[in-house]
Amino acid sequence: MVGGGVVGLSVAWRAAKEGAAVTVIDPDPGGGASYAAAGMLAPVSEVTYTEEPLLRLGVDSLARWPRFAAELTEAGGDDLDLRSAGTLDVAFGADDLTALGELAEFMAKLDLPVERLTGRECRRLEPMLAPSVRGGLLAPGDSWVNPRRVTRALLTALSRLGVPVLRRRVAEVVVAGGTVQGVRLAAADAEPGSRGVRPGRPPLPHQDSGAAPEQIPADQVVLAAGAWTGSLPGVPGGVLPPVRPVKGQIMRLRTPYPALTRCVRGTVHGSPVYLVPRGDGEVVLGATQEEMGFDTRVTAGGLWEILRDARELVPGVTEWEVTDVVAGLRPGTPDNLPVIGRTALPGLLVATGHHRGGVLLAPLTADLVVRLLAGETIVDHSCSPSRFEESTE
Amino acid sequence: MVGGGVVGLSVAWRAAKEGAAVTVIDPDPGGGASYAAAGMLAPVSEVTYTEEPLLRLGVDSLARWPRFAAELTEAGGDDLDLRSAGTLDVAFGADDLTALGELAEFMAKLDLPVERLTGRECRRLEPMLAPSVRGGLLAPGDSWVNPRRVTRALLTALSRLGVPVLRRRVAEVVVAGGTVQGVRLAAADAEPGSRGVRPGRPPLPHQDSGAAPEQIPADQVVLAAGAWTGSLPGVPGGVLPPVRPVKGQIMRLRTPYPALTRCVRGTVHGSPVYLVPRGDGEVVLGATQEEMGFDTRVTAGGLWEILRDARELVPGVTEWEVTDVVAGLRPGTPDNLPVIGRTALPGLLVATGHHRGGVLLAPLTADLVVRLLAGETIVDHSCSPSRFEESTE
Repeated sequence: MVGGGVVGLSVAWRAAKEGAAVTVIDPDPGGGASYAAAGMLAPVSEVTYTEEPLLRLGVDSLARWPRFAAELTEAGGDDLDLRSAGTLDVAFGADDLTALGELAEFMAKLDLPVERLTGRECRRLEPMLAPSVRGGLLAPGDSWVNPRRVTRALLTALSRLGVPVLRRRVAEVVVAGGTVQGVRLAAADAEPGSRGVRPGRPPLPHQDSGAAPEQIPADQVVLAAGAWTGSLPGVPGGVLPPVRPVKGQIMRLRTPYPALTRCVRGTVHGSPVYLVPRGDGEVVLGATQEEMGFDTRVTAGGLWEILRDARELVPGVTEWEVTDVVAGLRPGTPDNLPVIGRTALPGLLVATGHHRGGVLLAPLTADLVVRLLAGETIVDHSCSPSRFEESTE
Repeated sequence: MVGGGVVGLSVAWRAAKEGAAVTVIDPDPGGGASYAAAGMLAPVSEVTYTEEPLLRLGVDSLARWPRFAAELTEAGGDDLDLRSAGTLDVAFGADDLTALGELAEFMAKLDLPVERLTGRECRRLEPMLAPSVRGGLLAPGDSWVNPRRVTRALLTALSRLGVPVLRRRVAEVVVAGGTVQGVRLAAADAEPGSRGVRPGRPPLPHQDSGAAPEQIPADQVVLAAGAWTGSLPGVPGGVLPPVRPVKGQIMRLRTPYPALTRCVRGTVHGSPVYLVPRGDGEVVLGATQEEMGFDTRVTAGGLWEILRDARELVPGVTEWEVTDVVAGLRPGTPDNLPVIGRTALPGLLVATGHHRGGVLLAPLTADLVVRLLAGETIVDHSCSPSRFEESTE
């Protein structure tokens, strides 16, 4: 398993539970996009609701979350802060209201529970909302989870199953005789990856994996390296999917009192903004969407944009303490669908391209990959890597 | 010496050089307001130029800085990043231009070098300035320094002189027979003070000072505990000066190229904002001024205000990386002048109330306190603690 984000760790955990001999390789397990993510489990969002194949995947995976969370809580010994208090999408202007109306019709058509609200009704549910909110849409069953707790629980569960997690980079996928033989590790890094701007907390200690061999043999290799999956060396051209990094800057704040009950979302200045409250008083504000290549700098402009938009939604946010600022790279694909499955190279599988949906889609992805690793064939599968392989021929 | 900020450490260093037996006590030496400070050595600023006594102090201390810096660089073995490329104060509107004109006249009257510039001339000097800048004032000799390097050099210099620096809090000043006997230390803290939101860097290791006695005897005690100086227990009422915390939030950014040559200041939405460039590509953006009591939270509103104002001055700031965000508490006094001198309690001296000018005024303060410790009397002294003692009688 190359990649120790929420997707890679979920696949590794499920596969190890099924008895597979798994090794996870990631220089910073639980880091990257999973560390940045807010953790909304909302298949219908302002960005993607017109994309039905993706929506179907999300609804499918959401249905798997309760059991996934229950088993992981048991296996990882830690509360995931899974909450199901609903999402409130709000509108400021006439255009926003129209868009919400269309979203409501769409959700009703799919039998997803939804309720239209006036501005006053929105503020009755969430008193900190701005007076300028003119209406909203309540998805009462929407859920969210703390992704940092999810990856921590997955790492604990893997450790309990005896699965090695090597904190190393992969130098290349080793191919011989037309099949995958394993991976070769890069020299151990002096520095672990950055995890953004945080309140004086130490970086993860660099765990010396000097005992690990330089080459890890494997019959099957799953690449779940997020935005980096498309550029791993060693694989013949045209085999790896065309994933690109979509930068997201995101802030975590601490409120001295319970400030919000639900996830609150809206569109401000044309860009979507959300506030996700946790059980411990943390509120996550996000997120930018930037096509900047492999750039994980937290920038003045990114913070300013998030703060400007969040203030429009919830003016009282200005009083809250900033505890954490980070940038992650979502793995984006040309058709916004993930890439999950066997590649054209025997023994090589991929599980990436989840863009904004990695946390939501992790249980489904894990179940799919475990079936593929066991030799099953999944037909008529919208996430198949072959859709990109064909286009490169 | 109670307090290990730039003022306390400067006094301790100068006194130890003169042969005094000094002990410095601070739970986080080099932390607090000194850690937050931008380090401008500008006696004339947009806020204080109408206050002549303070200006005289600033001009006096500024004249002491070159020698202070040279000696400290030698003693501390570290470059302080002292730069003298000037300050550019810019104006956006007619009111701002009028205010700059008055400031120019005032500075000329004091024989301080100053030059009026058009907006075009400002942008020729600093091409990243906003097109909306209509004019400016260049103080070509203005200097600035990196306060974090200054406190680090002071700690090194003290260490070389064998001065103990105890990382502990003072529980109370010990008074008996109407004179100071020393201080009693609080139990060692489990946690060092917070230093704001930083890029995954470790907090200072907690240095166990278990070997230190609970009580430090001293003939003379200097309180340089910044905003906390007014509330130290053990001192009879009316003796300590009325200092209050004035919260300042401040950001540090990293530019990939030399972005600014000079300090750039302006007034945006009625509040002063500045950008201070360092030799290593860092730019300091500051700062809020908030009357919030002993509150060192970095808030969404504070960051938003700094970013909004800095963007007006230098739009390109949005592209820069945010590396550090911190809030400090400046020690403010009712008349905006520092409080330096002997108190009504024999053996007790204070050196605090420097507000925005602690770094600038450190050399002068150190020289004054060393003279006082040696038994000298300083007459007609605008910073005397007695001005507040009299008012409470």
